[in-house]
Amino acid sequence: MQAMQWEGDSLLLLDQTKLPTKVEYLRCTTHQMVADAICRLVVRGAPAIGVAAAYGMALGALEYKGTDKEGLYTYLQQVRRTLAETRPTAVNLFWALQRMQTKLDNVKDKPVAEIRAALTKEAQLMEKEDIETNRAIGYYGNAIVPDQARILTHCNAGALATCGYGTALGVIRAAHEAGKGVHVFADETRPLLQGARLTAFELMEDGIPVTLITDNMAGWVMHKGMVDLVIFGADRIAANGDTANKIGSYSVAVLAKENGIPVYSAAPLSSIDINLCTGDEIPVEERDPKEVTHLGGIQVAPSGVHVFNPAFDVTLHQYLDGIITEVGILRPPFERSISAALAARATSTTS
Amino acid sequence: MQAMQWEGDSLLLLDQTKLPTKVEYLRCTTHQMVADAICRLVVRGAPAIGVAAAYGMALGALEYKGTDKEGLYTYLQQVRRTLAETRPTAVNLFWALQRMQTKLDNVKDKPVAEIRAALTKEAQLMEKEDIETNRAIGYYGNAIVPDQARILTHCNAGALATCGYGTALGVIRAAHEAGKGVHVFADETRPLLQGARLTAFELMEDGIPVTLITDNMAGWVMHKGMVDLVIFGADRIAANGDTANKIGSYSVAVLAKENGIPVYSAAPLSSIDINLCTGDEIPVEERDPKEVTHLGGIQVAPSGVHVFNPAFDVTLHQYLDGIITEVGILRPPFERSISAALAARATSTTS
Repeated sequence: MQAMQWEGDSLLLLDQTKLPTKVEYLRCTTHQMVADAICRLVVRGAPAIGVAAAYGMALGALEYKGTDKEGLYTYLQQVRRTLAETRPTAVNLFWALQRMQTKLDNVKDKPVAEIRAALTKEAQLMEKEDIETNRAIGYYGNAIVPDQARILTHCNAGALATCGYGTALGVIRAAHEAGKGVHVFADETRPLLQGARLTAFELMEDGIPVTLITDNMAGWVMHKGMVDLVIFGADRIAANGDTANKIGSYSVAVLAKENGIPVYSAAPLSSIDINLCTGDEIPVEERDPKEVTHLGGIQVAPSGVHVFNPAFDVTLHQYLDGIITEVGILRPPFERSISAALAARATSTTS
Repeated sequence: MQAMQWEGDSLLLLDQTKLPTKVEYLRCTTHQMVADAICRLVVRGAPAIGVAAAYGMALGALEYKGTDKEGLYTYLQQVRRTLAETRPTAVNLFWALQRMQTKLDNVKDKPVAEIRAALTKEAQLMEKEDIETNRAIGYYGNAIVPDQARILTHCNAGALATCGYGTALGVIRAAHEAGKGVHVFADETRPLLQGARLTAFELMEDGIPVTLITDNMAGWVMHKGMVDLVIFGADRIAANGDTANKIGSYSVAVLAKENGIPVYSAAPLSSIDINLCTGDEIPVEERDPKEVTHLGGIQVAPSGVHVFNPAFDVTLHQYLDGIITEVGILRPPFERSISAALAARATSTTS
């Protein structure tokens, strides 16, 4: 099951708001449709958002009706702004848009048709690279998964959060494929239940044993000795290793530490925002109170109740044993391991 | 709003499964109806369950059609077993049934009409005492609430969990009545949302400011410095102070400790089970997986997913700063303060 599929002139998105009871696709023919889909979480997960936004730029180039490259360039600046304003926390979105902008700058003097083709090709390349990245994350992450490991994960950092295979679930898939007999505890992840609706769903599809729990059971399950390892994804990682991820990740990490359980974040290097010294600087999206007060149209709280609904929190670097990336596992002190990994990538890209 | 009301020949229960969108009452005319209502959480909360079960015994005496006191006594033993088998964790249930049994033993040689009257009177006395107990808990607990305190609570230990005023919410009510300007953060408390449906509801009814959050936000809210104090209820407290309460309480306590926030449990002495040395011995009820996979009839997880659904967890005594009771705040070491409190009560009851 794929979160997205490029169809030549449109982007097909699996509507993740409808899972697991309905499998429906949304065909986006304009960049605005992609932006709306990102806002509404039709597509979600930091790596998937990034690539979807890249395709949004490609659609922007296709939908531009003029034939002048200057007009196209100007139009695409507005397209980029629209896509950038969808969600504030996952840095992969901005990373992907910047990469598309760099490509655009490289080809901006070519004929309009070539610009369009170049942008489409770049987005497709990013999609392909994302899957390769996740397989590399799985390869490196598998090393820290014991045989018969019982792994707790939070939210969905799976195939559905990426272009395929997943980050945290990529590690779990790699361990499963290696015959390690892993068992997953999936936090349901309120308010939008990505753990119940998406993680449990995609693990069951792949035949990986999973037990669903509510978020407030995670600590107790760990205390009872039922968990060997915690792995979750990341939406933005600061230079010191502080990691923004779905709300509740911070709590899971604290509870794991209290119970002597190792905690790893799994994410591509594109989730690292080297411009931010610490997690305090990461913008945390607050979303509609209705996500908390209503569920599938059913009201579950008193009318008019005051709600606080942050979509993310920040796991302080001291709770993390490592960050699993496509170039290996980054270990504390993270300032050093992160900057070394980024420097090595810059060198390999340049050479 | 009252959880229950005795009507002379029946027990009126506010159906808490329907709140906050519907205010409906269930009239129980037999002990079996009370037992079913306890199982289905029409009435819930350790103190409320205890008194409801006591009324169940009274109803059992009324529904017995014979005129022989021996037959009534035998019938009531079966009534007691039925009520005792409803829910395993809250010790107040067994405490209340034992108290009714003691009353029965005291009057068992009287005419049937007098036995019936004595049992009804005892249940009514327990209801009245429960409210007085909660007011005393509120009085003592108020001492540890700072001005302008922002208090996080989990599940519902309020008027709805008792015969009125509440335990944890009794402390909050007392602080509010004292003009302290408190603000409450209510964890929604999955799977059955007692925090969203009941705590937010009853605080709003009383004009006490409340912010609703999902359970996985509690840690982050504490980390961001938004909480000064944590208070929750108790379903059973072991001799060493280990406290069983709604699933998620353990996590809240660990997260509070990590962030330097004091944690109190508020409960009547009848929630203490002196026969259990530690929380390891407290039986933890596991409930229907459907509570997790469905919400208001809506399916929120894949069909056939494996679920773990413990209804309670145990907060280890080392995470508690105190246990607020009707005789004052018990402090660590709890073995000593708990046994002293129980000994003092035994003396005052005897004298």
